[in-house]
Amino acid sequence: MTFIQDQVRNIAQKAKKASRIIGALSTEKKNKALLRMSEALITNANQLKEENRKDIALAQKNGLSSALIDRLTLTDKIIKEMASGLKEIAILPDPVGEITGMWRRPNNLLVGKMRIPLGVIGIIYESRPNVTVDAAGLCLKSGNSVILRGGSEAFHSNLFLAELLQNEAEKEGIPREAISFIPITDREAIYALLQLEELVDVIIPRGGEELIRAVVEKSKIPVIKHYKGNCHIFIDSTADLKMTEKIVLNAKCQRPGVCNAVETLLVHREIAPQILPPLIAQLQKNGVEIRGCPKTLSLVPGIKEATEADWYTEYLALILAVKVVQNIEEAIDHIETYGSQHTEAIITQSYENSQKFLKEVNSSTVLVNASTRFSDGFQLGLGAEVGISTTKLHAFGPMGLKELTTTKFIVLGEGQIRE
Amino acid sequence: MTFIQDQVRNIAQKAKKASRIIGALSTEKKNKALLRMSEALITNANQLKEENRKDIALAQKNGLSSALIDRLTLTDKIIKEMASGLKEIAILPDPVGEITGMWRRPNNLLVGKMRIPLGVIGIIYESRPNVTVDAAGLCLKSGNSVILRGGSEAFHSNLFLAELLQNEAEKEGIPREAISFIPITDREAIYALLQLEELVDVIIPRGGEELIRAVVEKSKIPVIKHYKGNCHIFIDSTADLKMTEKIVLNAKCQRPGVCNAVETLLVHREIAPQILPPLIAQLQKNGVEIRGCPKTLSLVPGIKEATEADWYTEYLALILAVKVVQNIEEAIDHIETYGSQHTEAIITQSYENSQKFLKEVNSSTVLVNASTRFSDGFQLGLGAEVGISTTKLHAFGPMGLKELTTTKFIVLGEGQIRE
Repeated sequence: MTFIQDQVRNIAQKAKKASRIIGALSTEKKNKALLRMSEALITNANQLKEENRKDIALAQKNGLSSALIDRLTLTDKIIKEMASGLKEIAILPDPVGEITGMWRRPNNLLVGKMRIPLGVIGIIYESRPNVTVDAAGLCLKSGNSVILRGGSEAFHSNLFLAELLQNEAEKEGIPREAISFIPITDREAIYALLQLEELVDVIIPRGGEELIRAVVEKSKIPVIKHYKGNCHIFIDSTADLKMTEKIVLNAKCQRPGVCNAVETLLVHREIAPQILPPLIAQLQKNGVEIRGCPKTLSLVPGIKEATEADWYTEYLALILAVKVVQNIEEAIDHIETYGSQHTEAIITQSYENSQKFLKEVNSSTVLVNASTRFSDGFQLGLGAEVGISTTKLHAFGPMGLKELTTTKFIVLGEGQIRE
Repeated sequence: MTFIQDQVRNIAQKAKKASRIIGALSTEKKNKALLRMSEALITNANQLKEENRKDIALAQKNGLSSALIDRLTLTDKIIKEMASGLKEIAILPDPVGEITGMWRRPNNLLVGKMRIPLGVIGIIYESRPNVTVDAAGLCLKSGNSVILRGGSEAFHSNLFLAELLQNEAEKEGIPREAISFIPITDREAIYALLQLEELVDVIIPRGGEELIRAVVEKSKIPVIKHYKGNCHIFIDSTADLKMTEKIVLNAKCQRPGVCNAVETLLVHREIAPQILPPLIAQLQKNGVEIRGCPKTLSLVPGIKEATEADWYTEYLALILAVKVVQNIEEAIDHIETYGSQHTEAIITQSYENSQKFLKEVNSSTVLVNASTRFSDGFQLGLGAEVGISTTKLHAFGPMGLKELTTTKFIVLGEGQIRE
C-alpha cells in the first residue's frame, strides 16, 4: 500500500465509524449544526476570502482560463448564498426514519420499509468551492458521512471551508470525521478512494465529462453520474406560436451554459414554414447561432448547415441545432438516437401527442409546454439539489435529500417461523 | 475489437432496440406471452430434459461435484415450478406506468414521477438453468430487454430454454431480441458485455462470491450485487424461551444452504446460563455443530471454540457460531463489525430494545421475533424475487418487479418559463 492509499483508507475508516453516529442523530441536532455552520460562514467571510485569494493567485500564475477563475472566486454574494443554502437545508424535512410503506402478511407478520442513510458518500468535484458547503450540508441532513475531494485549484478555499464546518459540527457533538476532507491534490488519492468498496457506499462525481468517465472507469464503488445534457424541444404541428417562442428563448438563452438548456430543436414539417423564420430571427437577435438541417436552410437562407456531429453535441453556449421532422415518431426516434436521456420537452395543443411524448420518451425529465430549464431539484419541488443523474439506477433526474438515502425492510413478528 | 467483443456488442445493440418496443407493450400482451411460455415449458419438457442430459453427461465427464450436478438437473418437478413461476409473474401487477407521486408547484406546473423500465438488464449466472426462465419472465413483465449469460455447465439447457422463450414471445409480436442469450461460453464474452455502458443499464450477477467480485471489478455498468449473508440472531435478556428455540432452529436448520439462514447467535449474558444448555442440546440433536466463545464453552462444555474467522463466516451448512454478549450495544457492535448487512433478528419482550434494534441495525432486513428465513421476496410480500441486494444503492434487500424499474419526472405545463 502506498502512503497515499494508506492515508485515504485511514480517512475513510474514520468516516465510516462516524457514519453510525451521524446516522442515528436527531433531526434537531442536525438542524442546529446546520444553522451554526451557516452563521460561521458569515462571521468568517473575510478569512475565507483571504484563503480564496491564494487559490486565485495560483490560478492566475498557472494561466487558468478566466471562466475557471470565475467559478473559483468567492464573492460576498456567493458566501451569503452558501450560508442561506445551509439554512434552507435545515428547514427541509429529515428523510431518515420515514416509513415508506407497511403491510401485513397472511401469517400476521407486519412488514415495512424504513428510510435510512446510505452511509458514507464520496464527493469528487472540480473548481467550485461552494460544493464543499452544499454537499456537506446535504449529507449531514440525510445522516451520511461525507468524504470530500475537491479540485486542486480550490485547495485553500476547500480546506478552510471543511475545517470551519468540522469545527461547528464538533460544537454540536457531531464527530469531525462525519465531514471528511482529503487534503491530497494528487490524483492517486481519487483512485485510492474508488477502491474502498467496503468503506464507501456511493461516489458522486461533479464536474466535466472527462472527470466523470475517469471515475466510472476506476471505481469499484457504485457511481451516481451525469455525463451531459443534450436536451431537445419538439415543436408539434399544433404548437401555440407565442408559447413556443417564449419557451424556446427561455430554454436556450436564459442560461446557456447549464445542462438543462436546450441544444436541439425538432420542428414538425407542417408548422416549420410558419414558425421557423420568425423564431430563428428572434433567436439570432438574442445572439444565438443556428445550425440547421437542409429543410431549415431552405426556409431560412443564410444559416450554417448542421453536421451529423451537431445532433450529438451539448453546446453549453448560444448555439442551437434545428431539424425539421416528418412527425412525432421521427422526433422521438431522433431523441432516442442522439439524446443523453436528460431532459426533453414537447410544445403541443394535441392531447394525444402530449400523452404519447410523456409515455414514450424515457429521459429523466419529460415536459409538456414548459421550458427545459425546469429540470432542476429546486424547480421540481425537491427542496434541494444534490445533482442530476442521467443513469437509471437508484435515481434518475434531479436528486434531492431522499436520493441520499435507501430503505431497509423491517419485520415485526410474534414468533413466526418459515414452514 | 475481437470477434467475441463484436458478437456481444451486436447482441446488446439489438436488445437495446427491442427494449423500446417491450417498454411500451401493454400489460395484456406481456401476460399473454408469459402464459404461452409457461405452457410451452410443459409441452416441451421431454426435449428440454434431453438437452439437460447433455449438460449432465458433460458435467459428469468433467468430474463436477454432485452438489453442482444437482443444481444443474432439471426434473419434472423443477420444470413444473418454472412453468407455474411464469404464471405467477403474469398475475402480478405491472409496475410500468405507475405514477408514484404528483404535486403542483407554486407556478402551477404539475410535476409527477412515472415508473419506467430500466431498459436493458444483463444477467450473469452460474449453474441453475431455471434462472434463464425466472429472469426472462421478470424482465418481460417489467418491460425490460434481458441479456442472459448463463454458466457453461448449463449451456445446452439454457440455449434450449432461451430459444423456447424467444419463439413464444415472437408469437405475441414481441421481438426475439427482448430475450437475448449470449451463446459464447468464453469468459471474454462476460468482460465484453461489462464494457457496454451505453447499451446496458444494469448488470445483475447471480452466483458465488468469486463470480460477483470479478463482475464488479470489470464492470463499467452499475451492478446490483449480493456478496454473502452472514446473518445474526440476538437473544435478548427478556426473550421468551420457547419462541427462541423455535426461531433459532428454523433459522439454522430449515434450509442451511441459503443466504438467509442464521450463522451467528448472540446471547445476552443474563439469559445465557438458562437458555444455552437446552438450546445447544436441541441444535446438536438436529445435527448442528456449535462453535462457541469462551463463555459459551464454560456453560456448555465439550464444544469447539470459535476463532476470529468464525465471526466473519457464512457457513451455508449446519454450523453455528455462538457468542455471549454484555448487552444489546455489544450485540449491535458485533453485527456492525462482522456482519454482511443482509439480515438480522432480535428475540425480545422489551419494547425499548425492539425499537433500538430496528432503528440502529442497518442491514437490509431487520426482524423482531421472527426467523431470518423470512428475508425473501415472496415471504415479504413482493410477489416475486429477482435477487437480494446487500449494497444500498437502488435496492437494498430482496428485490421484486419494482426494483427492475426506475422513475422519470413528468411535467405538465401551460407555457411556463423560468424567471
